[in-house]
Amino acid sequence: MTMLKNPGVKYRPFPPINLPDRQWPSRVITQAPRWLSTDLRDGNQALIDPMGAEKKSRFFDLLLKVGVKEIEVGFPASGATDFDFISGLVKGGRIPSDVTPQVLTQSRRDLIETTFASLEGAEKAIVHVYNAVSPAWRRIVFGMSRAEIKQIAIEGAKIMRDQTAKYHGTDWHFEYSPETFSTAEVDFSVEVCAAVMEVLQPTTAKPIIFNLPATVECATPNVYADQVELFSRSIPDRDKVVISLHTHNDRGTGIAACELGLMAGGDRVEGCLFGNGERTGNCDIVTVALNMYTQGVDPGLDFSDIDAIAKTVEYCNQLPIHPRHPYVGELVYTSFSGSHQDAIKKGFAAREQQNDETWEMPYLPIDPADLGRDYEAVIRVNSQSGKGGFAWVLEQDQGLKLPKKMQAHFSTHVQELADEVGRELFAEDIWTVFQKTYHLSTPQHFQLVDYEESKAADGTRIFAGKIAVDDKEQSVSGRGNGLISSVVATIAETFGVSLEVKDYAEHAMTAGSDARAAAYVECIGPDGKTVWGVGIDEDVATASVRAVLSAANGAART
Amino acid sequence: MTMLKNPGVKYRPFPPINLPDRQWPSRVITQAPRWLSTDLRDGNQALIDPMGAEKKSRFFDLLLKVGVKEIEVGFPASGATDFDFISGLVKGGRIPSDVTPQVLTQSRRDLIETTFASLEGAEKAIVHVYNAVSPAWRRIVFGMSRAEIKQIAIEGAKIMRDQTAKYHGTDWHFEYSPETFSTAEVDFSVEVCAAVMEVLQPTTAKPIIFNLPATVECATPNVYADQVELFSRSIPDRDKVVISLHTHNDRGTGIAACELGLMAGGDRVEGCLFGNGERTGNCDIVTVALNMYTQGVDPGLDFSDIDAIAKTVEYCNQLPIHPRHPYVGELVYTSFSGSHQDAIKKGFAAREQQNDETWEMPYLPIDPADLGRDYEAVIRVNSQSGKGGFAWVLEQDQGLKLPKKMQAHFSTHVQELADEVGRELFAEDIWTVFQKTYHLSTPQHFQLVDYEESKAADGTRIFAGKIAVDDKEQSVSGRGNGLISSVVATIAETFGVSLEVKDYAEHAMTAGSDARAAAYVECIGPDGKTVWGVGIDEDVATASVRAVLSAANGAART
Repeated sequence: MTMLKNPGVKYRPFPPINLPDRQWPSRVITQAPRWLSTDLRDGNQALIDPMGAEKKSRFFDLLLKVGVKEIEVGFPASGATDFDFISGLVKGGRIPSDVTPQVLTQSRRDLIETTFASLEGAEKAIVHVYNAVSPAWRRIVFGMSRAEIKQIAIEGAKIMRDQTAKYHGTDWHFEYSPETFSTAEVDFSVEVCAAVMEVLQPTTAKPIIFNLPATVECATPNVYADQVELFSRSIPDRDKVVISLHTHNDRGTGIAACELGLMAGGDRVEGCLFGNGERTGNCDIVTVALNMYTQGVDPGLDFSDIDAIAKTVEYCNQLPIHPRHPYVGELVYTSFSGSHQDAIKKGFAAREQQNDETWEMPYLPIDPADLGRDYEAVIRVNSQSGKGGFAWVLEQDQGLKLPKKMQAHFSTHVQELADEVGRELFAEDIWTVFQKTYHLSTPQHFQLVDYEESKAADGTRIFAGKIAVDDKEQSVSGRGNGLISSVVATIAETFGVSLEVKDYAEHAMTAGSDARAAAYVECIGPDGKTVWGVGIDEDVATASVRAVLSAANGAART
Repeated sequence: MTMLKNPGVKYRPFPPINLPDRQWPSRVITQAPRWLSTDLRDGNQALIDPMGAEKKSRFFDLLLKVGVKEIEVGFPASGATDFDFISGLVKGGRIPSDVTPQVLTQSRRDLIETTFASLEGAEKAIVHVYNAVSPAWRRIVFGMSRAEIKQIAIEGAKIMRDQTAKYHGTDWHFEYSPETFSTAEVDFSVEVCAAVMEVLQPTTAKPIIFNLPATVECATPNVYADQVELFSRSIPDRDKVVISLHTHNDRGTGIAACELGLMAGGDRVEGCLFGNGERTGNCDIVTVALNMYTQGVDPGLDFSDIDAIAKTVEYCNQLPIHPRHPYVGELVYTSFSGSHQDAIKKGFAAREQQNDETWEMPYLPIDPADLGRDYEAVIRVNSQSGKGGFAWVLEQDQGLKLPKKMQAHFSTHVQELADEVGRELFAEDIWTVFQKTYHLSTPQHFQLVDYEESKAADGTRIFAGKIAVDDKEQSVSGRGNGLISSVVATIAETFGVSLEVKDYAEHAMTAGSDARAAAYVECIGPDGKTVWGVGIDEDVATASVRAVLSAANGAART
């Protein structure tokens, strides 16, 4: 049944980190990290069609708009496309003074020199050098010892240091990545990073960024957190170091690894909008930021028009965002299940009564409005839904607030239609079946043409009007204690349809001078069965007359 | 810049669990849990168009094929579609004896009765009842006290107990979900579950399943693990309880929560294939299972033809799977970056030398072949790639193993093309530019027509043949110490193109009788620049003659 009789022969479990006194599981994230977008580098290099200048430029402007202050703009030594774009940003004055561009390079003299050249004239910049340090890479890819691998990093640091002397007009900052950190021995990563510090001599005022990549995600996310905490405890002069987290998503836990890594000591997060990147993607900066936001922590990034951001990202990456992607997917503020819909409806009602801003909404961990999304899109109705869904739709779209018992009555009609059509019901479907069920659309069997209401000497009400029966008008009248009972009497006496009114409700549908009213009557029909009537009119009295006629139509049809 | 000046006014941080002696962070997952697919229930209820009978049936068969032994087949009281499907499975004998169907119901008498009725005649079944227990739901949705909420669960349990007496032919099992567990007080969830146990009297032989839903993901995944560990420690008669995990993905960490929950004591996992489900989806069973698999733990599920599974799921759900979805996405075994491609190439080479099965491959945490995916699809080439990518493609598609120095030479041509076209290069593009660069396609300036090789009395080699120069054949000859030098001499003497051969390599391109050979020569041309030549022929000698002519063409053109 399984893919291999014994996967233990082929795959080895990742060795856990021995850190029994780990602190991160008791911590919470209380402040935003520094954010570094690598959309234009790690994201871009993983695209089927990498961005050209126009798309890169558009993405760069988007990142500025979102408020990202550190942007990895490319890999200048990789080719003319990247070099020219980066050089163009600098020379074109496209980089605001509060934004720092970052560029990546391997630890080789020619590449590092090209890299510095691309940034000539920049006010401030981060040069990011990397080499892989894990045992598998050392053996398989480089055929090098620990000492040789460390030497690559040291040499790279020296070349960087020397280049800064050449380009002294720029405020240079350094980032070093022990690539494949997540599959390397933490003590070796620390050793290499410490050697790089020896060369570059960071200070508390000008710390070095050590980026700790989960180049490939190879263990549960708690292991990455252990690695980060161990690194953070072991690196010398911790106050001269900014720990940056760079997770990937091979096991579907890249966001979790980033969050637990922040709890473990991370100061900075590298990632891409909506998680683009190599293979399964980089850490999704949007989700990490909005996760903080829902905990009351200001992420310092602006996603208040998330759909517009998503559209630009989809255009530039030429890759879709999944309909279930957290916070942004088409379906994430949609609830199909009846019990969910009912709970959300109650949540919105409770919120109206509330005295403060606190967001506490069943099934919705964030207010969609904060991201420019819409409440009205929240609920759809299908055959899996109960009464909450259509009641919401009728209230939102038609202004009708059905009495609870009437919701139960109408739900069977919705259910039948949903079972029949076998697809989601749209607001129009529900409105159509509602009008049909309660005889609101014409032609009607009994149709009100006109009426007058007067008071008899004995105090009873007299209803006198014209009702068309299957389009044939006739004059009718009747008496009762009130308007409704006079209409009921009229119908019973004139047409032989006897109704007993059990309950009645009415409400204004809209505010202002053109307000309309909706009336609902629950009656017992001639056959002893419950029949509901609905009337809608600009006049509250007429609405209730129409409601009784609606019930009479229901009774006459059964 | 941010969405709200201070999100702390609107959003409250999730209160952490006080569990300083938590054990889960030191544990690893060493065995597969019980798996419960809720694709036909939680997944289905979240679809834009819920599955009809045909799609449900197809999905059910897929789950059997994957090897899922517990399948939540629906919500029978929700309507005719579900009831009829479930009843049809039972009565149609569609459920194998080692598979247990599960059905969900709210804790209400009429619904529970309908639920049991749908399973009439089943050999074995799990009835799953739930009610929400968290403070927000108690207050906003139900307006009930703790005691009242607990009473709903107790009543449900009693009705279930009584129903089993009615349908005594079936081996009944029970599952209870304190819905909204993740946002409820753990002690209250334990209290309600314990009350349910009192009624249903589980045994070690027939334990009760307590499902702990992260109905809405509201905190970092470690918090869910803390909640699970606390529940597991607090519930009475732990040996009579199966703890089931049911996570959602609102914060993008549903898989992580599930994994940490397993470390914290979970025995069973509920989820959907590829993470379908309400809003952002349920836990993705495929990823959790394959994450175990890459750690040498047999998940007991078969994903050996993952693309076929994905196609069926996409058809039934009418929702796409994202190209970066772990293990299954179109792009997850594709590497675009040159350094990644180079490392993978070396990884495959190292694997050929290896004496055991161990999988240790840069950038690929799983062998794509285990899932029916292809190595050949692994690498594409674009302007972000270095030399590793095209070298791989040429080796895979053309059987050419370029010398390392020649790779560097050719890479500039690939780079130029990639920069020029601004899109991914396909294998054909690379082959076209290769043929053009090394003058392999006709017409050629110098073109070999025929030749003979003989040995002079002094031991030197004599090359005598016909070479067409721009389609005009002429007879030529020359001498040298060997074949190559005799061709070099011929070209120099006849055409005035002097080449100095610096290096030479040749290899068989294919095995068997129709094997061809590829020869590569590195020369210094008349202008002192390096020029490479490539020759391909069925005859090893002719391949090297062609390689020299290829270099001559290169030198003549510059």
